[in-house]
Amino acid sequence: MIVVMKRGATPDQIAHMIRRIEEEGLRPVPLYGTERTVIAVIGDERGEHRQSLASGPGVEEIIPILAPYKVASLEAKPERTVVQVGPLRVGNSHLGIIAGPCSVESEAQTLATARAVKAAGAHALRGGAFKPRTSPYSFQGLKEKGLEILALAREETGLPIVTEVLTPSDVPLVAKYADVLQIGARNMQNYRLLEAAGETGKPILLKRGPAATLDELLLAAEYILNTGNYQVMLCERGIRTFEDHTRYTLSLSAVPALHERTHLPVVVDPSHGTGHTSLVARMAAAAVAAGADGLIIEVHPDPEHALSDGFQSLTFQQFEELMALCRRVAEAVGKTLEPATTPETSLVAQVA
Amino acid sequence: MIVVMKRGATPDQIAHMIRRIEEEGLRPVPLYGTERTVIAVIGDERGEHRQSLASGPGVEEIIPILAPYKVASLEAKPERTVVQVGPLRVGNSHLGIIAGPCSVESEAQTLATARAVKAAGAHALRGGAFKPRTSPYSFQGLKEKGLEILALAREETGLPIVTEVLTPSDVPLVAKYADVLQIGARNMQNYRLLEAAGETGKPILLKRGPAATLDELLLAAEYILNTGNYQVMLCERGIRTFEDHTRYTLSLSAVPALHERTHLPVVVDPSHGTGHTSLVARMAAAAVAAGADGLIIEVHPDPEHALSDGFQSLTFQQFEELMALCRRVAEAVGKTLEPATTPETSLVAQVA
Amino acid sequence: MIVVMKRGATPDQIAHMIRRIEEEGLRPVPLYGTERTVIAVIGDERGEHRQSLASGPGVEEIIPILAPYKVASLEAKPERTVVQVGPLRVGNSHLGIIAGPCSVESEAQTLATARAVKAAGAHALRGGAFKPRTSPYSFQGLKEKGLEILALAREETGLPIVTEVLTPSDVPLVAKYADVLQIGARNMQNYRLLEAAGETGKPILLKRGPAATLDELLLAAEYILNTGNYQVMLCERGIRTFEDHTRYTLSLSAVPALHERTHLPVVVDPSHGTGHTSLVARMAAAAVAAGADGLIIEVHPDPEHALSDGFQSLTFQQFEELMALCRRVAEAVGKTLEPATTPETSLVAQVA
Amino acid sequence: MIVVMKRGATPDQIAHMIRRIEEEGLRPVPLYGTERTVIAVIGDERGEHRQSLASGPGVEEIIPILAPYKVASLEAKPERTVVQVGPLRVGNSHLGIIAGPCSVESEAQTLATARAVKAAGAHALRGGAFKPRTSPYSFQGLKEKGLEILALAREETGLPIVTEVLTPSDVPLVAKYADVLQIGARNMQNYRLLEAAGETGKPILLKRGPAATLDELLLAAEYILNTGNYQVMLCERGIRTFEDHTRYTLSLSAVPALHERTHLPVVVDPSHGTGHTSLVARMAAAAVAAGADGLIIEVHPDPEHALSDGFQSLTFQQFEELMALCRRVAEAVGKTLEPATTPETSLVAQVA
Repeated sequence: MIVVMKRGATPDQIAHMIRRIEEEGLRPVPLYGTERTVIAVIGDERGEHRQSLASGPGVEEIIPILAPYKVASLEAKPERTVVQVGPLRVGNSHLGIIAGPCSVESEAQTLATARAVKAAGAHALRGGAFKPRTSPYSFQGLKEKGLEILALAREETGLPIVTEVLTPSDVPLVAKYADVLQIGARNMQNYRLLEAAGETGKPILLKRGPAATLDELLLAAEYILNTGNYQVMLCERGIRTFEDHTRYTLSLSAVPALHERTHLPVVVDPSHGTGHTSLVARMAAAAVAAGADGLIIEVHPDPEHALSDGFQSLTFQQFEELMALCRRVAEAVGKTLEPATTPETSLVAQVA
Repeated sequence: MIVVMKRGATPDQIAHMIRRIEEEGLRPVPLYGTERTVIAVIGDERGEHRQSLASGPGVEEIIPILAPYKVASLEAKPERTVVQVGPLRVGNSHLGIIAGPCSVESEAQTLATARAVKAAGAHALRGGAFKPRTSPYSFQGLKEKGLEILALAREETGLPIVTEVLTPSDVPLVAKYADVLQIGARNMQNYRLLEAAGETGKPILLKRGPAATLDELLLAAEYILNTGNYQVMLCERGIRTFEDHTRYTLSLSAVPALHERTHLPVVVDPSHGTGHTSLVARMAAAAVAAGADGLIIEVHPDPEHALSDGFQSLTFQQFEELMALCRRVAEAVGKTLEPATTPETSLVAQVA
Repeated sequence: MIVVMKRGATPDQIAHMIRRIEEEGLRPVPLYGTERTVIAVIGDERGEHRQSLASGPGVEEIIPILAPYKVASLEAKPERTVVQVGPLRVGNSHLGIIAGPCSVESEAQTLATARAVKAAGAHALRGGAFKPRTSPYSFQGLKEKGLEILALAREETGLPIVTEVLTPSDVPLVAKYADVLQIGARNMQNYRLLEAAGETGKPILLKRGPAATLDELLLAAEYILNTGNYQVMLCERGIRTFEDHTRYTLSLSAVPALHERTHLPVVVDPSHGTGHTSLVARMAAAAVAAGADGLIIEVHPDPEHALSDGFQSLTFQQFEELMALCRRVAEAVGKTLEPATTPETSLVAQVA
Repeated sequence: MIVVMKRGATPDQIAHMIRRIEEEGLRPVPLYGTERTVIAVIGDERGEHRQSLASGPGVEEIIPILAPYKVASLEAKPERTVVQVGPLRVGNSHLGIIAGPCSVESEAQTLATARAVKAAGAHALRGGAFKPRTSPYSFQGLKEKGLEILALAREETGLPIVTEVLTPSDVPLVAKYADVLQIGARNMQNYRLLEAAGETGKPILLKRGPAATLDELLLAAEYILNTGNYQVMLCERGIRTFEDHTRYTLSLSAVPALHERTHLPVVVDPSHGTGHTSLVARMAAAAVAAGADGLIIEVHPDPEHALSDGFQSLTFQQFEELMALCRRVAEAVGKTLEPATTPETSLVAQVA
């Protein structure tokens, strides 16, 4: 941490801040520059309350030096985390493909999609049973009935299930059916939900909030990691910017930048990240080239009639074309889409 | 809703879309322009699944016309909603002032602050007992102990309590002590929490998420209003932008723009909206001039030692100066800071 | 400047960077922390080439400490700059009001507007003769004919003229007619234009670019100040964000934040900053409460027929109402709208 | 264009707007909906002055339907534009690689870089002689001396020269040396410069401004195309967002989205688009996978000593690695990096 004093800071003010830093159990090193004095602070500066030093007399600003997260950092765990459930492996040389409808609408729609995405090479099935919807007037999901349909689809295809959970009290129910719990972008900082989901021990797909920095995403992951659950996949799904040609701006630099900071694998969602069917395949390919460890893609038998997100869903044929493109790009960057054969984690979620 | 067809759309595609619109129970009016065809759609277009029409053949885009919210709209309820609890009145000619520490840290800190803000003219006490913190390593609040301290402060000063609730399962406990339930910016789209808080019947202070549009804020309010609870205050507290001279960008145009759209009163939080003590008073005054119905301000006896948000907290004297400035500006724009004397809602929350 | 080394930086890398800093004529102070080493750098770190130190071996990042601007800073000139031309005084206790049409469309339209805004209390007339238009198919301005009309309006009303210049080769012509040269938001970093305008010695109204930080705005001002011309007004006119209820997000915190950093006065443009007539008056009042030194407002005799910006222009009556509101708020914050009577700068621009 | 009337709009107001639309030479089609009336407008709605209809009585908003650009549109010219200069071909199956230093610093630095990038497979040399710098205290470029050095490098390597021009009066000088004129991001809406550069007939590399929408970029291109010069390359180089892990947010969805809208080729600049050497190669590969027609990359013999942009420049070896990666990805998506052999445009710029 660097405490930057104002240009006219008095010796008394500087002395006061030196004492305050010592009070915090840290070591101050005052540096008297040509234009102003700064006080370098040595020690573990983490703990947001230390930002209150910015209110000290004569202080201009506080500049943190250390990354605020710990266990998510590559420094804490230099070997990369690989998340595996059945045929899905996300991390290192494996590119994991998660595909399926935005919402589970019916058994027929879900099973048809599960078969189609499996045939095209996907490793897991996504599908929402509990849907967070911006408008209370929109379809809210089939809830437990939807989970049962997903379990059926898993039974038939062998694809593990990735599905969202919205609130802590639903975690036990959703975890009974799901193989991977998804925390949606709206809930990235819903800390009680992060903890409840983490405590199930199931792999977690944590989506980046549309206004979250990478530090904030990693701190959210840290809430999960601190439950002892290290099976966490981060997901870039687009940020809010001024752009109007897409629903969100898919920030692919997050992929290599996260790889520089954390051992956790990074999945990209080009469906939400663009909001337009016609852009999904190209941005999926770009994500793979950027080094993504996985993709999550919305696919629907009949997007025009979808109860949600039709405008960004692919038909079965469009998904096949995406897979062909991504397979070629994956090979170009040294990744494989082969299903995992030596499971590191078994398919744990079986409905009793 | 306007369905804009692509330039080369065929008669078959246009005919298909006309049928699809009819299937939705809406009336299509095709308009054959010089460069392209658009189909105007008459009827209530709400329901997000209709956006899936964008996936129809030959469709370029779908443009909604109607605002997506209903009961929050000024059209649904032309008279302004006024929220009142004890001396706090927010709406119409009354400017309600909510002040207090970011976190309840101790009885002494909280009581001293309550006395000071009351003396300066505040109408309600804010203070966090359950704290949502970006980092798991930061102070997480005193929880129930904090609520007890807030109740003590209310007993002594008569100021109603505004405090945050983080998760549905905490709602009964927090509602036992609080007069106003605050939904924080991170939870603006935590729909189960909105519903649980709404169902208590207590007034709700709903903070705008840092990446939320006004439509999204109003749709979040709609989740609460749909529980039958109309005591909702909206709160502008800054949005995420590229600016680096403040923690967030306080978007004061939200105040008059919300007043054009909704009957709900609008509170402004210049503490979070700037993140710098030195900017708070000026932005509070600007909020009042913009027509805000209330302010929520962080005040601490000793900001430099605050366990959270010291860098944006005011000392007692700074808060007094802010009140003097805001009082003058309020008069200039026809608002009063007098405490409410004819309570429309009584002080309902008394610890048994 | 702080050079933050990577966690695993070797002693050789640290030694290399210490030498590099010395090569730059600066003094390095290495600080060996618990998790990583940082090297504090003492001396004048300005000069962007020093950012290339970030490419040194083992370097994680470079954190600048000193503000990059010099002569614009409050430290360089603690007394506030006041810009005055005839009745317009911008700075300190005077609130200068600049009003007029977006574009000069005709003599009748311009003179009618000049008379109306003068009657309502404005101190200067704005009006574009050379118009920067996003689309080449939009009205591009009357050019010299427009300047002649503005001069006529000045002759009749005594209001000094504020008008935009787009390119260095137009500067002599525009300066022949204008009292204040406006640099538009699109040209904030058009450095040759900044220099050419500065060299005229005329007061400059420099608009903030929609993606510019305050540092970048002040560095742009510095290009003008370095020509020896200190008559510079900065102008906040809205930034690009995700918000869709306004054309731009008017960032009023820029007003007090600039006042903390620079001696230059700050004008606010709520017309461009909102893009909606109905929001202009309230945001003008908010700007005054935030401490603005001036306002620039679009006014048109018949906005519905305006050749540009009708959607954000005020009618004469709306402008009168805005003036009444702003006058009351100005008094509340200790500012006056009285025209300047003891000119510090005379009305210099007279057409020969 | 759709004119959306307010909910309570009166028949008189609707009749007034119908007349106004007819006055504009357009055909109004009023549609009386359940909640409000909208008036669809048939005809060519372009011309920004028509947005002033938004100021009409009872009007809520105006929604444009037609894209505002014309000649840049794919509809106007369905075959893709290919820009070729010597070995550089940008468009269709050719991926053009432009590489070189941010600034021309010396003959030795520039020639060494030119040789290295040519050896690695680049098709053109970039290098700034006139530098737009945020700070007036930064290196401003070698100006004509720099251009002479670039010409020398061309003579030796055969690589055509891409270099920036800052102001209209420099265009003749820069055009005497350059093969491609670059318009920088700061100047995207410097319309006189766009026109002056366009009139040289030389190929133009037009960088997207950091706050520009795709419509605004295409309208800027339209200023050049309207001079009769169709040799325009668009360049995505990052937008301003809240993200702090990169200097800008490289928005790769712009690539396929531009390809859907325009016939002009799209180049990506991952150096400015990330601002960090370590992220450049991955984002270059992602750009290729997204369908980019070209890349522009900063390369320097010794980034740590660069006079500008060292922090985002690649060493020769890093550039070789980038080329190897991009070559593989290019093949995966059906593009070639082979130099053009059947020039469509000859190397026209030879210093007399």
